[in-house]
Formats: sequence, C-alpha cells, structure tokens
Amino acid sequence: MKEHMIYLDYAAATPIDPEVAKAMHAAEGVFANPSARYSLGRKAREMLEVARSQIAQVLACKSSEIVLTSGGSESDNLAIFGLLKDIGRGEIITIPTEHVAVLSPIAQLGQTGFVQKMATIDETGMVDLSKLETTITDQTVLVAIAYASSEIGTIQPIAQIAELVQQERARRKQANEQTPIFLHCDASAAAGRLSLDTNRLGIDTMSLNAAKIYGPKGVGLLYVRRGLNLSPIMLGGGQEAGRRAGTENVPGAAAMAKSLQIAEQMRKAEVSRLTAMTQQLARRLTEELPNVLINGHAKMRLAGHLSFSLDGYNGEDLVAYLDTEGIMVGTGAACEAANRKPSRAVMALGRSQTQAQGTLRLSMGRATTEADLTKFLEVLTSICKTLDTIKV
Amino acid sequence: MKEHMIYLDYAAATPIDPEVAKAMHAAEGVFANPSARYSLGRKAREMLEVARSQIAQVLACKSSEIVLTSGGSESDNLAIFGLLKDIGRGEIITIPTEHVAVLSPIAQLGQTGFVQKMATIDETGMVDLSKLETTITDQTVLVAIAYASSEIGTIQPIAQIAELVQQERARRKQANEQTPIFLHCDASAAAGRLSLDTNRLGIDTMSLNAAKIYGPKGVGLLYVRRGLNLSPIMLGGGQEAGRRAGTENVPGAAAMAKSLQIAEQMRKAEVSRLTAMTQQLARRLTEELPNVLINGHAKMRLAGHLSFSLDGYNGEDLVAYLDTEGIMVGTGAACEAANRKPSRAVMALGRSQTQAQGTLRLSMGRATTEADLTKFLEVLTSICKTLDTIKV
Repeated sequence: MKEHMIYLDYAAATPIDPEVAKAMHAAEGVFANPSARYSLGRKAREMLEVARSQIAQVLACKSSEIVLTSGGSESDNLAIFGLLKDIGRGEIITIPTEHVAVLSPIAQLGQTGFVQKMATIDETGMVDLSKLETTITDQTVLVAIAYASSEIGTIQPIAQIAELVQQERARRKQANEQTPIFLHCDASAAAGRLSLDTNRLGIDTMSLNAAKIYGPKGVGLLYVRRGLNLSPIMLGGGQEAGRRAGTENVPGAAAMAKSLQIAEQMRKAEVSRLTAMTQQLARRLTEELPNVLINGHAKMRLAGHLSFSLDGYNGEDLVAYLDTEGIMVGTGAACEAANRKPSRAVMALGRSQTQAQGTLRLSMGRATTEADLTKFLEVLTSICKTLDTIKV
Repeated sequence: MKEHMIYLDYAAATPIDPEVAKAMHAAEGVFANPSARYSLGRKAREMLEVARSQIAQVLACKSSEIVLTSGGSESDNLAIFGLLKDIGRGEIITIPTEHVAVLSPIAQLGQTGFVQKMATIDETGMVDLSKLETTITDQTVLVAIAYASSEIGTIQPIAQIAELVQQERARRKQANEQTPIFLHCDASAAAGRLSLDTNRLGIDTMSLNAAKIYGPKGVGLLYVRRGLNLSPIMLGGGQEAGRRAGTENVPGAAAMAKSLQIAEQMRKAEVSRLTAMTQQLARRLTEELPNVLINGHAKMRLAGHLSFSLDGYNGEDLVAYLDTEGIMVGTGAACEAANRKPSRAVMALGRSQTQAQGTLRLSMGRATTEADLTKFLEVLTSICKTLDTIKV
C-alpha cells in the first residue's frame, strides 16, 4: 500500500503479519509430503502436528478436533454437508445475516429433503433467543449461526444458543429420540475480537479463516467436536483423519497457528483500542451526517466494525469516491460485491432498499489510527456534501 | 535438506522453486479481496486474472476454462462430483492404478445410482484401447483415467482415449440420445513431463497440482472445457464463475502460473536428461539385483520415474534403511503410505503380494544427479546383501 492510503476493509481481507509470513516461509523449506516415511517426511508431519496443537491451544480443544481446510468457505461447506450427509432429512435453522458460504449449502440441502427455517433476528441483527427456543423443534438437525456477522458486526449470544441446542439434545436423549442436533458457528469474522474457547462456546463445529487474521489466503480450519461423525466433501488419501483429503499444507498450517496465536495475544488490547475508536467514529458520524443510520447492535458489535446506511446515497458510488481519495472501505460482504444488489444482511435488519443501497462497512485493523478515521470522516462528509449539491 | 541427503521422491512432493516463491511472496503484498471494488481490490483481481491467463497459455485454453482450487485432490473431486451431480446415474469407467482422489469419489458415487466399471489394463499398466472401446457403452457418463500414474509411471494414450469418448459422443448425437459422456484426466503426475495442451489431449476436465511442480502446497486447478456444466462442491460467494466458492488465493494463483511456466520451459531438456538417467538406472538395477522387476511400461513411462519390485524384501523396511543413509524414496503413493498395505496399483499389474510388498518408487527431479543414482544403487545393493545374509 502507498503511504497515503487508508485501508478500512479488514473484514474483507487482512495483510499478512510479517511474523506469520516468516513462519510460513520457513515451513516451505520442509517440503516433503507429511505422509512420507523417511526423516524429512516425518519432520513435515511433526511441523504439521506442532501447528495443530498450537491451534488447539488457542481453541481450548484437542488437536484431533482440528480439520485443516483451504479457508472459511470450505469449512462452512464441510460442516454443513459433512454433518448432515448421513442424516438425509430434518430442519436446518439459520439467520438471514449469515455468510453465503453458510446460506448457499443450506439452500441446496433445502432442495433435497431438508427444510430451511430462518430464525428471528431483531433490528440490531441479534437472534431472538426466546423465539429461537420455539423455532427449534424435534425435527431440527442443525442450527447454523455465525459468532458475529462480517457484514453488520453484530455479535450473537452463541453460548446461550448452544444451551438451547444442548437442552433439546438432552430432551431427545430423555425421550429416546435418535435425531441428532448440531450447532455450527462461523467464527471467521470473530477471530481476533472474541474468545475462541470452544468449551465455553459449546458449539459442535466452528469455521476459521487465516486470511481474516493476518494470515495467508487459502488456509482455514474447521473445529469438529470429538465424537462427531463428519463426512468429507473431498475424498482421497484419508488425510485429516479421513475428514479432508489432499496433501497437507504444512506452511499453511504453520501460518494458521501463528496467526491465531498473535491474534489471541493482541486481542484484548486491540479490542479496547478499536472499541474506543469505533464508538468515537459512530458519534462523530452521527454529528456530521444527521441522516446516518448505524447498523447492528450498539454494544454487542465487533470492535473496529461499523456498518452504516446513508439513505439516498449509493454505497458503491461512495466506495468509488472514497477510493479516489485513497480510502478503502466496503459496502458489505466483499464476496458478494460482484452482484451489486443491496445488502441482504442490511435489508434483514428492516432497512429499506434505498437505505440498504446506501450502506458502507468500515472495518478497522491493527494499522488503523485515529487520524485515518478523522480523514475518512472528513472525506466522506465532503463527498456527501458534493453529492447533495448535485442533487439540488 | 542437509548437503549429503539424496531426495528421490519428487512424485510425492517437490521443493518450491525460488522463482515461484518470489512470485508468490510478491503477490502476498497485494492482500485485498479481489472482489473489493477499490483500487487495491482491482489490483488483486488483475493479478489473479494475469495468473489465470498465464496458466491458460500453458494449457492452450481460455482463462475461463481454469478453476483454481486447493490442490489435485480437490480438483479430482470437483471434476467427478461436479460433472455428475445433475446426471444422477450411469456408468463410470476408471482403472485400478488411479489416485485415490479419483477412485474414492467414484466408489462413493457407486453407492448412489452410478455403476463403477474397471477398464482393462495390461501388465505395464496401460489401458487396453480395444477393450476400452467395448467397455464404453451407451450408459457411460464418465471415463476417468490419469495422464500418467504417479505410482508406476506409465503414461496413458489420453488422446486416443479421448477419441473413443468423442466417437461415442458423436454416435449419441446421431442417435439423438441425451446421455452425456465426459473424460476426466488427472494430470498432476504428468505436469512438467508431458505436454499439457488441452486441445491435443481432447479431455473435458484435467487436474493439476502446484505442489508437484515446484509450487506451493494447497494450490491446484481444474481445467474445465468451455460449455461444460460443472456443479460446485463448495458453495458461497460465486467465485471462479460459480464453480468454486471461497476468497481467491491470489499469491497461490501467481505461484501456480509461475510453476507451470517454468515446468513448461524446462520440460524438454529435463525429460531428455531424466530419461537417459532413468534408463541407465533401470539397466544397472537389473544387473546388480537380478531378481528386480521393473514396474510399468518400458518406454511410455514418466521421465525420471522408476517403480520396481524386489520380491522377498519389504519396501517399507527398504525405505527406512535407505533413510538412515540419507536417501529418500517412496514405496508408492505417499498419500496412502499410512495404510501399510501392498500397493494396489502394483498389484493391479499382476504382481504377487510379496512382489508388491517389496516395491520402491524412485522419482527424480531437477536436482537429481547421476552421482545420486550411483549412490542410491550402491546403498540399495548393500542393504539387500545385508538382508540376504540375515535371512540365511
């Protein structure tokens, strides 16, 4: 990036941390296939398992519960298809603010014997727990709710959702009903911001993506609670304990471990720094642009994340104008930017189509400073003023 | 690797070429999400498409025919599941020497309405074309045959197999039959040794793996002939023209392109150098160890690839003994090394169980010298002599 550029789209992509790059490039030297039976192969296997146990430490789980994948999307697909393959029918509960890598597999299963149900969220994007309790029935096989929305930043009460799932599981056990129920949680957006302690969360499967925490592209993982039967979506050499075929990406694993370790080390300080900056920005935005609508929850929001709608403006145009001033922000999920429709997630909060169309998503990261945000606000205000003049 | 180590397992894994590492690490700097609409996002998208067109040039195809994946196994799974998802039934023809990433998806489909048929191979591992012609029936929907076997090195007459498939396709068109027929080719082992010109090959889909051609782990591609309907196995953000979800791995794509370019540039010289060395090694092996059986085809064999069986010895033990002398070779597919069974591919050539058990696979690469092979032969002969003494 050029010196004068201001990057405020960390939720879409993060630069590689130099320490992560170093760990990854070092591991590239041990290039042997981890399945090979000579010393260099064993060394590669050892590096892989060291990385896996470092990951497990951050997630407070066992190494055997970690399935290394090629990213967050693969992890979501693997969880959803993998948990439900042998089940064949039942209800799947999700929410409209989920990532497309969760919604699309569920929609596909909806055409093959499964029923898709949307749980109720309130106007902040938060799941209504009491309504969820009744949405879960004796036919529910999967609840898929992200730890936090990458688009609107709202944090979900995952531990409480897990309690509801466990409660239903206990009821079924008591009633001698055989239908299983799982809780999948996409934690890609939450990593580096919230605790990833899988025990406290009580989830069954959880997706993470190295590329969202200053790690490389093409590396992710799926946490799979021990004892769960997960069918692979890619078959072959039986790697990852039969859950994911393909020669293991040892440098990728080392990078994932380092990314998670650093994210966890920096987490509390970063959260407190970014929370203060986010709150200040939200206040100043409201002052400068009176028609701004902050999306998501006022408090239960990812640190450094701010989605807001400017009714009457076009988010895509604002992104383009800001870009000419060297400021990079998104409108919502970058992955869906190509389809140019107003954000599905923002619409789900009850915003109108024109409000949703005027949405910007600002997401801060390690390099973000107050000066960046001041500059952002200045430029945005000026752009809006210019656009207002044209309109008149 | 230590100075004195001799690596002869390039078919299992290759070290990263410094030029490839350089291209990959440089691309890591352009970290934005290629779907982002600001300048840095567009730059990432541009780098991705430059890489894709460089790849397409080597494959003599269009950029739109390249689907970037996380490796050879994913590519094989995507081809097989992706081509057949909407078809639902029919016969799938393959051969017993295929990689497990081809055999396992086919076996799974065999449980869901498809019928798996093994085509006849001769004792060199080569497909019997005249028998294949009759194995293909009006119910055949897929023929999956690798360009060359990673285990035994035999090169298949892919262009002629493609002609048979095209012939059947033409017959169906004439007869107004609607059943489609596809040819999938795993070219992971062939890359760097054989021409990857997709037009000449006449295949419908083709897998490649960067990690086999001095590129990074976790990066591969699937060539998909234009006009083919390929269902994704991972759903989400619609990347890769809807054929593979997940944020694009731009550094991985740059590395894949560079790996392929270098492999293609070096190909002819490497093939001639390695062919001479392989032939000499085969001759000397036969002289030194009279009971050696060279597996695979005498001439239609990958340059630098030599699989051979030593009846009465244990391949796993030989690998271990050689390793203590700093020599690294494999027994067969590294991915399957963990299961410790005699090589399925070698057994398929008609070798006995004890012969298959005594198999070593030696695969040379860019750093291999004649001195390495002389040393290998010396050490192997000495190990065999010692083992013979113990036996007596």
